[in-house]
Amino acid sequence: MKRLEFFFDFSSPYSYVASESIESIASKYDRTVDFTPILLGAVFKVTGGRPLTDLHASKSGYSARDFARSARFFGVPFKMPTVFPLATVTAARAMVWLQAQRSDKAASFMHAVFRAFFAEDRNISELAVVANVAAQVGIDATALAAGVQEQSVKDRLKAHVDEAIARGVFGAPTIFVDGEMFWGNDRLAQVERWLERGPF
Amino acid sequence: MKRLEFFFDFSSPYSYVASESIESIASKYDRTVDFTPILLGAVFKVTGGRPLTDLHASKSGYSARDFARSARFFGVPFKMPTVFPLATVTAARAMVWLQAQRSDKAASFMHAVFRAFFAEDRNISELAVVANVAAQVGIDATALAAGVQEQSVKDRLKAHVDEAIARGVFGAPTIFVDGEMFWGNDRLAQVERWLERGPF
Repeated sequence: MKRLEFFFDFSSPYSYVASESIESIASKYDRTVDFTPILLGAVFKVTGGRPLTDLHASKSGYSARDFARSARFFGVPFKMPTVFPLATVTAARAMVWLQAQRSDKAASFMHAVFRAFFAEDRNISELAVVANVAAQVGIDATALAAGVQEQSVKDRLKAHVDEAIARGVFGAPTIFVDGEMFWGNDRLAQVERWLERGPF
Repeated sequence: MKRLEFFFDFSSPYSYVASESIESIASKYDRTVDFTPILLGAVFKVTGGRPLTDLHASKSGYSARDFARSARFFGVPFKMPTVFPLATVTAARAMVWLQAQRSDKAASFMHAVFRAFFAEDRNISELAVVANVAAQVGIDATALAAGVQEQSVKDRLKAHVDEAIARGVFGAPTIFVDGEMFWGNDRLAQVERWLERGPF
């Protein structure tokens, strides 16, 4: 089956909103989704980007309002997290570990982590929270807690970040369809057009 | 008739694309559009914003691609201007002058200037080009050329910029519906939802 690539950071609200619909969009066109966690902080070091909340008050205030309004528009539960943004390296490493060890559970885990953060206001920077979320979707929490410490897992996450930067990613979510890059939840309609009719 | 506010800069590609559909969206819900020209350069001085092309190569390269792709997606003619961005103060002052002197022609003029820049690659920073475009839509070009020099016109444009900043505008297009702010062509679907069903 053909694929579609979805690069995301667990602390990106628009990644969360897009993650709730990307699989149904892909499956309409007989695609599966490759989910790739990245760390936007590491990307921003190279591209000069800044978190949407670390900007002039006008833009950060609007962004917070837009997160919630966009979530409502797309019918996705959302509650602005108390701690935001936060470090997502542990959650991202857990995702990387799962994709090698329990690939059947990786997407469920991703959705559960996003919801824990953006709907339930849980602090997903903490390993205990990540492990607990993992357990909720049927993953061995002890094995996962050990897995995120593996050097190969750390290296693989770093490789994902490097690959993203090399391919021109500067924000999240970023979606690639047959090499064409789309940035942002608000480009999903264009992603769908591309899947349906090809290049435009 | 109820209104809807549309703040734009003539050098903003997403303002151009949105300008091509905002009136039809508004009229579906019995609204008219108040078009307000602003100068993003002046806004950015306060908000710290930067033009989309004056960023890391990844983002500026993607943006240029996205301008054209988004225009195709929305069925709007687009050709990346040779000179971009450029100074839009003369075109903006002409718009302000028209809104006082020939308000019946202001929207036609705006559309013609946008198309001259983004579809016909004409240098709209030049008064001669702005005057020529004005003449094409039935405006007295000589009167307009004099009008853009009036102090009251200059002051009114500055007041528009100040008002925009005071109301939280940091980019363009920015649309206000009953006080609710929406930034970007990619929020038009949310604007339409708001017009149709009210706050969400």
